[in-house]
Parts: sequence; C-alpha cells; structure tokens
Amino acid sequence: MRNLKLVVAYVGTRYAGWQLQPDRPTIQGVLEERIGRMLQEPARLAGAGRTDAGVHARGQVANFRTASRIPLEGLVRGLNARLPIDIVVLGAQEAPDSFHARADARGKEYRYTIERSESVSPFDAPYVAPVRGPLDVAAMRVAAEHLLGTHDFTSFCPVASPIEDKVRTVSVSDLREDGTRLEYRIVGEGFLRHMVRTLAGTLILVGHGRLDAGSIPHIISARDRRRAGPVAPARGLILERVFYEEAT
Amino acid sequence: MRNLKLVVAYVGTRYAGWQLQPDRPTIQGVLEERIGRMLQEPARLAGAGRTDAGVHARGQVANFRTASRIPLEGLVRGLNARLPIDIVVLGAQEAPDSFHARADARGKEYRYTIERSESVSPFDAPYVAPVRGPLDVAAMRVAAEHLLGTHDFTSFCPVASPIEDKVRTVSVSDLREDGTRLEYRIVGEGFLRHMVRTLAGTLILVGHGRLDAGSIPHIISARDRRRAGPVAPARGLILERVFYEEAT
Repeated sequence: MRNLKLVVAYVGTRYAGWQLQPDRPTIQGVLEERIGRMLQEPARLAGAGRTDAGVHARGQVANFRTASRIPLEGLVRGLNARLPIDIVVLGAQEAPDSFHARADARGKEYRYTIERSESVSPFDAPYVAPVRGPLDVAAMRVAAEHLLGTHDFTSFCPVASPIEDKVRTVSVSDLREDGTRLEYRIVGEGFLRHMVRTLAGTLILVGHGRLDAGSIPHIISARDRRRAGPVAPARGLILERVFYEEAT
Repeated sequence: MRNLKLVVAYVGTRYAGWQLQPDRPTIQGVLEERIGRMLQEPARLAGAGRTDAGVHARGQVANFRTASRIPLEGLVRGLNARLPIDIVVLGAQEAPDSFHARADARGKEYRYTIERSESVSPFDAPYVAPVRGPLDVAAMRVAAEHLLGTHDFTSFCPVASPIEDKVRTVSVSDLREDGTRLEYRIVGEGFLRHMVRTLAGTLILVGHGRLDAGSIPHIISARDRRRAGPVAPARGLILERVFYEEAT
C-alpha cells in the first residue's frame, strides 16, 4: 500500500467544515468521494487540521493509503478535473508508511483577516471578517504579543471541550496593517477548537477599547471561557500551512 | 424627485445576471427589493450594463428616482447593511434629473481573465476562466490589436440578436500577461450581447493555434457568427467601469 500526502486549498463557505459528517457537505467527504471514484477503491483521509464550517485553507495537509499505482501527477490532475472549483489539490507526494497528517504535524499557521472598510469588495468579502468602528491597532499588537509562549488556553476554547490538556505553545502572534485590512498571523504547535477565532475575537475587543491589552495575561491565567472575547466569524480564518519534520 | 446614481460591485456567480427576471435571483432584483424596503417606496433601477448570468462587476452604474430625503451616506451604509455579501454599493451621488445610467454611458471597460495554471487557487477560481494547454500570447496580442477601431461586430454576437446596428468602436484592446494569468482589457463606447466573451473565446482559439491572428479582419468582414470563436465562460468577465461625460 502507498501512503500519499496531499496539500489541499479550499474555500470553506459552502461546507460544514473539513470533517466528514453524514448528510452534510464537508471537504473531507467531497475529497474521499472523488478519490474513491477515481481510484475505484474506498479512500479514508486523515486531515491535519479539522477546520470548522466556513473556514478556508491555503495549505491543508491530508494523507490516505491506496493500492493504486497511479502516478502522482495524474492523481492531482484527475482529482482537480473532478473537484468543484472551491476545492483544489495543490500537490501530492509519497509519504513514509508511518506518516499521519494529523499526528505528525509539528505546527500550523493560521491567518485571520479583519476588514475595516465600510464597503468591503464583494470579491474579497468571502475571505475577510468585517469590523465596524475605529480599532486601536497598537493596543491589539500588545495584546497579540501577550499570547506568545506556552500557556493554558482554557479561556479560549469551548467549555464543553473534551480535551484534558489545554496547554499550547504559540511561536508567532503578529498583527499586520495593510490599508483598511488587519491580518493576524498565528503559528503554534497545535490549536484547540475555536482557539484562533476566539483569540481574534478577543483582539477585536481590545481594538474597540472594551478590554485592556494588559488584561490578556489575567484572562489566560483565569482559565475561564467567560473572560475572553467571542468567537470571531469563520469566514475571516484561513489555515495557511502545516509544518512537519523535514523528512516528510 | 431626486435622481440618484449608484456605483455597484458584485460577484455574479449566484445570479441570473443584472436584469430583472421573474422568479430568478438577479442583481437588479435584489437591489430594487432592498432599496424599496429601506426607503418604503418602490424603486426601479436603470443599469448601465446588462451583465449576463455569472458575470461580475467592479463598477456597474445604475440610477433610480426617489422622493426620499435620505442623506447619500446613510443610503450607502443602510443598503450595504441589508445587501448580501456578494453585492456592494461603492458610492452614491445626486445626478441631474435627465441622467440615465444606460443611455448616457459614453463607454465601458471590461476585463476578461484567463488562468493557465493547472491548479487554480480556489480563492481566485470564481473570477477567472481556466484554459488548458500552451497559448501563443504574441499571436493573441496581434489578434487583439485587430479589434481596435470601428467595426461591424455581427460575427461576435448571437445570430438572433434583435439589434440592427452592430457597428461598435473599440478604443482599447489589450492583453497583459502576469505569470500564469492573462488579462484581456477592452474599452469601447458600447458592446453587443456576448460580444466581449465571444472576442475572448476567439482570442483563445488564436492562442491555441486553431485560428490565425491575421484572420481576424476577415472574420469581422464576414459578418458571420460561425466564423468567430465560442462564448468564453462568464466567470472570467468583469465589468470594470462605466464612463460618462464629466458633468455626471
């Protein structure tokens, strides 16, 4: 059996997220169905990041096992010919038998885009979150820096989360201003469910002056979901890249 | 009664074109409905360009008459709050009573985007037409230049077209290459139905070597729809701008 690694880009607008769900369109579901039809054998994908409904990806990574001997180039071309225009396979490669896209991921980069313009271009609107009113970008930058390092992020994930260990390490937490647009980039070893969008929602509260940048360490140490901001809209979030050890 | 001029941008993917149609979603229909609800009086829009199903606009212009005294800024803000994210009012201004967006238009600029990459980014895919195989861009440029000037464009519009006079003047017909992307820009006083997409489809035939660039003058003079190329896909076409006399 070959173990194939795919890099996939998608616009999540029409989908109920990455992960397979009965009777709802998901990225994983569409990909598995198309791969299965093309290779004439059932395919089961493991995705590195289980992006939520409406979240996009420029560099999602997934792997699957196959007995097919199809060349990689033919696989990519054939899949793209069969996929809807909002899902694209950017590349495929042979992976070691032990490779697992989720378990082996060493880090991920997400980008959250905020658009302050009163009339967001309809060409960009599906990929940005509109925010009204002036934002104190300097304060948001200070808040973003407070997120760097290893913390227990309990305050930034749903109360009902089944995961015990909520300690995560953030290595990049960076806000860039580009005209009316703000791009928040975060890199970390791993993220909790809703974590990036909750961090973005908290930064927006800081920008609006409804939360002090200096309160971020206290929100973190409180380990209380009620202390952080709301989950920012899915459409502003893009999974940019997944990092692995060099060998894979 | 005031006569208000609107500049509108939209992504045409979900719509059956600009022009009002019973029981089908159209840009004009959505705008009239939202304006009507907001101003509490029926609105009837005149649009400069009747873009087809799936065609986009960055600078469509339309006008409507209203008894409302709403300030222009409030109109724009209120409409954008009510419109779906794929339609945006970029601006509004008071127009002379005689102004008519279609009748007074002195010219229009369209852009047709061809993407040669094998894997088109899903973020760009709704706005470009994918074309496979190598294209002879130099030959396409020569063909594009042959379109400049005043010609009878009968060969480039549907046979069933009810319009008698098919003479139109093209002042810009220009092909730019940007990586895997080709952008065809055309400016003219006015265009026939399907004309820009048929010109794009003809340029693609030239690019594929299935038509000689030097044959364009003969295709024009033949006044025979069968001589030109197919209508290129709607999603690659954007109405960029509408030109008026300076006063409006």
